[in-house]
Amino acid sequence: MKKFSKEEIDKFIDLLDFSKIEGGLVPVIAQDYQTNEILMLAFANEASIRQSLETRIACYYSRSRKTLWKKGETSGHIQEIQHVFVDCYKDTILFKVKQKVAACHTGYFSCFHREYVNGEFIIHGEKIFDPDEVYKK
Amino acid sequence: MKKFSKEEIDKFIDLLDFSKIEGGLVPVIAQDYQTNEILMLAFANEASIRQSLETRIACYYSRSRKTLWKKGETSGHIQEIQHVFVDCYKDTILFKVKQKVAACHTGYFSCFHREYVNGEFIIHGEKIFDPDEVYKK
Repeated sequence: MKKFSKEEIDKFIDLLDFSKIEGGLVPVIAQDYQTNEILMLAFANEASIRQSLETRIACYYSRSRKTLWKKGETSGHIQEIQHVFVDCYKDTILFKVKQKVAACHTGYFSCFHREYVNGEFIIHGEKIFDPDEVYKK
Repeated sequence: MKKFSKEEIDKFIDLLDFSKIEGGLVPVIAQDYQTNEILMLAFANEASIRQSLETRIACYYSRSRKTLWKKGETSGHIQEIQHVFVDCYKDTILFKVKQKVAACHTGYFSCFHREYVNGEFIIHGEKIFDPDEVYKK
């Protein structure tokens, strides 16, 4: 997978609108590049987008830890970026990714595995890994 | 399509985490319920989520106009909500919708029709409608 050049990354960053969310963030949707299943939504700042495009491995910004967050750093469940899209306002990014193992920290492939039906949550899909094993100290 | 009851809506609202984005907002992804194509990302506050679930027609919160925004009110390009998902942190919503005509105000089916490749945007899909005709005064 071809890496983005410094010039291409600079141009991309310049086009984005970071003004709408406090802290200069944009939402990023990660979607399975083959099935179109949505895996997660996270936020990114300029530095995390630069890292994502330089490495082709998804990197976000953790609002709780206030640091760059290379997805899968602990678990190994990284996301290889296959395609980069922006929306019409250039304030939201879509990464189409090849997800290793699973995206959700609870063990499911997608973070959006709960559907709200008749006042209850129905779980879609199976638990792929045991979080206690993967995130043990 | 079965409407959500007042009790079901209250319970759903209580479960959501509105604390992470200024103004008590949560991101909402709209996805085509059949193809899984992502149509758009918008934000919602409590009132817009209540209206979406009561009517099964997607309603968001416009950050620029600071009002509820019933998607398609001018254009008729409404989104009929087929499924409601939340993510593992309950701070992001996913609506799987039946989109009338097209989601994007520029005339494309999806707001994410621009892919960033080799320093340029490649347009995916065709223009379905002429914005000058649909949004004329």
